Amino acid sequence: MPDPRHLGEELDLLKRRLVLMGDLAQQRVREALEALVARDPRRVREVVTGDGPINTLQIEIDDHSFTLLALQQPVAADLRLIVSAVKISVDLERVGDLAVNIAEAAELYLAHPPVKALVDLPRMSEIAQHMLAAALDAFLSQNAVLAKAVLAEDDHLDQLKAQVFRELLTYMLGNPKTIEPALDLILISRHLERIGDHATNIAEDVIFITEARDVRHSRR
Amino acid sequence: MPDPRHLGEELDLLKRRLVLMGDLAQQRVREALEALVARDPRRVREVVTGDGPINTLQIEIDDHSFTLLALQQPVAADLRLIVSAVKISVDLERVGDLAVNIAEAAELYLAHPPVKALVDLPRMSEIAQHMLAAALDAFLSQNAVLAKAVLAEDDHLDQLKAQVFRELLTYMLGNPKTIEPALDLILISRHLERIGDHATNIAEDVIFITEARDVRHSRR
Repeated sequence: MPDPRHLGEELDLLKRRLVLMGDLAQQRVREALEALVARDPRRVREVVTGDGPINTLQIEIDDHSFTLLALQQPVAADLRLIVSAVKISVDLERVGDLAVNIAEAAELYLAHPPVKALVDLPRMSEIAQHMLAAALDAFLSQNAVLAKAVLAEDDHLDQLKAQVFRELLTYMLGNPKTIEPALDLILISRHLERIGDHATNIAEDVIFITEARDVRHSRR
Repeated sequence: MPDPRHLGEELDLLKRRLVLMGDLAQQRVREALEALVARDPRRVREVVTGDGPINTLQIEIDDHSFTLLALQQPVAADLRLIVSAVKISVDLERVGDLAVNIAEAAELYLAHPPVKALVDLPRMSEIAQHMLAAALDAFLSQNAVLAKAVLAEDDHLDQLKAQVFRELLTYMLGNPKTIEPALDLILISRHLERIGDHATNIAEDVIFITEARDVRHSRR
């Protein structure tokens, strides 16, 4: 039977699980980049093999959401929140996958001498992590202003990606020995950009819910 | 008020919209690759600018799903189907975005002389399109056997992506003039691989629903 008092507690638990999943996802992205910069193959490997906890959380959030939809028959804002939770957990799980992809590319990169000092990629990682944190804050507080700030950060990430590409292309054109490792760095920059895209998805959903209009395609 | 007879018709309409969206997504991927092979900048540009209809369909499916969840209070299989529809529409919308990404890379590629005859990329595109069609068939018929065949095709796509990469790397190492256009082709192969990943997501959801157990993380 639906029980409105109980539903409030359940929604709080669902939100806490999403926050935990978001923290984990950020942590794994940060660790992938730090292990790459430190050129530490053992730490890189741990990121490649360590996506169990995030995947488990996604299944828990999915199950929890379905149970709430089926048993509590929520309406209006609560219904939107639960369906958003399902979508956000998908985005965060993909961020976990992208941390694995980054670590896999890092393993290939570490098999070669370094192409250059890594400055822009750690910067991209910081921005992507901040976007994720801000998007989840915006979701928890249902704050469209915070969510819009996430969209603005995404443009910065795209610029850095283009800059990384141009710089590495110069290395590749100048010295064929850098082609393979430079490609690994280019792919890492694309993975980081996609993490920003997932944060953007979450932010767009928040704006959609709070403003009850769809911004998702207006900026494409 | 919930009306079970009415719900059946609404679910059929929801399914038809998803099929339409899936057809559109496949069509745009096919057109992006054909325009690339034909080296036709006008057709490539049409793919870059033409993702309006898919985005509109996604919003319609999202709205429709929410209305059904809110007004019909579906349970069990119907509830799973509606939440799946929301998730699948997100995957198909991303496929539409990837068709744009492919066309954008194709525009850059066409600014250079051809690196090689394009054989593996059109093959990857065919596989990705087939995976999408099969995943949607599996969803409509709730057929786990069909869905599992999609997972098997994904391995083929990954192999082709690795083959494309190795071959293009050889061109890049042999002739620095090919570096820029070869990079565009490598990125296109990655976009095609991601289309396969979205078909895989849909197939995994079907297996999850039909077998009521979670295969999503068992093969990672």
